[in-house]
Amino acid sequence: MALKVSVYIATSLDGFIARKNGDIDWLTGGESGGDYGYADFMSTIDYVVMGRNTYEKVLTFGGWGYDKKVIVLSSKKIKIKDKLKDKVEVLNLGPKKLVKEIEKRKAKHIYLDGGVTIQRFLREGLVDEMTITTIPVLIGEGLPLFGELAKDIKLKLLQSQSFKNSFVQNKYKVL
Amino acid sequence: MALKVSVYIATSLDGFIARKNGDIDWLTGGESGGDYGYADFMSTIDYVVMGRNTYEKVLTFGGWGYDKKVIVLSSKKIKIKDKLKDKVEVLNLGPKKLVKEIEKRKAKHIYLDGGVTIQRFLREGLVDEMTITTIPVLIGEGLPLFGELAKDIKLKLLQSQSFKNSFVQNKYKVL
Repeated sequence: MALKVSVYIATSLDGFIARKNGDIDWLTGGESGGDYGYADFMSTIDYVVMGRNTYEKVLTFGGWGYDKKVIVLSSKKIKIKDKLKDKVEVLNLGPKKLVKEIEKRKAKHIYLDGGVTIQRFLREGLVDEMTITTIPVLIGEGLPLFGELAKDIKLKLLQSQSFKNSFVQNKYKVL
Repeated sequence: MALKVSVYIATSLDGFIARKNGDIDWLTGGESGGDYGYADFMSTIDYVVMGRNTYEKVLTFGGWGYDKKVIVLSSKKIKIKDKLKDKVEVLNLGPKKLVKEIEKRKAKHIYLDGGVTIQRFLREGLVDEMTITTIPVLIGEGLPLFGELAKDIKLKLLQSQSFKNSFVQNKYKVL
């Protein structure tokens, strides 16, 4: 069976995943306390794949939030802290080669994180599913989830769910 | 009671209301046949308010789709065709003055259409509700629904509905 590539991300209603400086202070759920299906999703994941920018931003959050292996895609050398050495791997691979590499490892499901990485994989037709949680705020500018495309990409809604705190989570299959 | 200002619009999943040339060819619902609440919404509307660009685009659709009075906001003179003269009015007013003018006329509810107009009213804090129907397609570039803001705008989800053709319609109150 081929590798499944999924996106699981939150955006502002105007489509940003972070402010220009990377801040996600606007990304608060109030008192909901739920995890919006994140733990269930993560339990199916073999690798988290992200770009260097996202990796460096995640480091600033303090504490390491991933209990799965993380692959950082980067054409530059990155120094990985000792305590993350068995958790983080840096690969200088484009989307297609990364998928091949992961398939060789017999993994079944990867989780793409970060706008640039998601956009690169979408442009190459390598994303299978996207779970997008829309936060009820307009922030005006920031880092966009989506970018330019060579052609339209159609999707099919697999699931739609709204929460008391006004979050809306839609799960799409990329056609 | 104060005037209520509503937005009712469809966007691609990547947040565009039209392609760069104004085309909405991607905005097709397949065989759903539904109107996504449009007739019910329109039945509560006193005036449709739009900018010149949207007005000129609507004219190219052939046939006039609005059964309510339309106000076109424009600082330039626009020649209105004879057969639309009792249906379309051109006003050279900004958002605040437009709202005052409409309130003077004892109207209760206006429908804002077109990205530029919606963005101007949002920036001035003059939008009360937004019904946004998300079409399951990424088009990569186009005319965005939202634009820059001086500060964040928070919203509350009033209703969320998904359709068999993968459309998702969310109704928000602007806080």
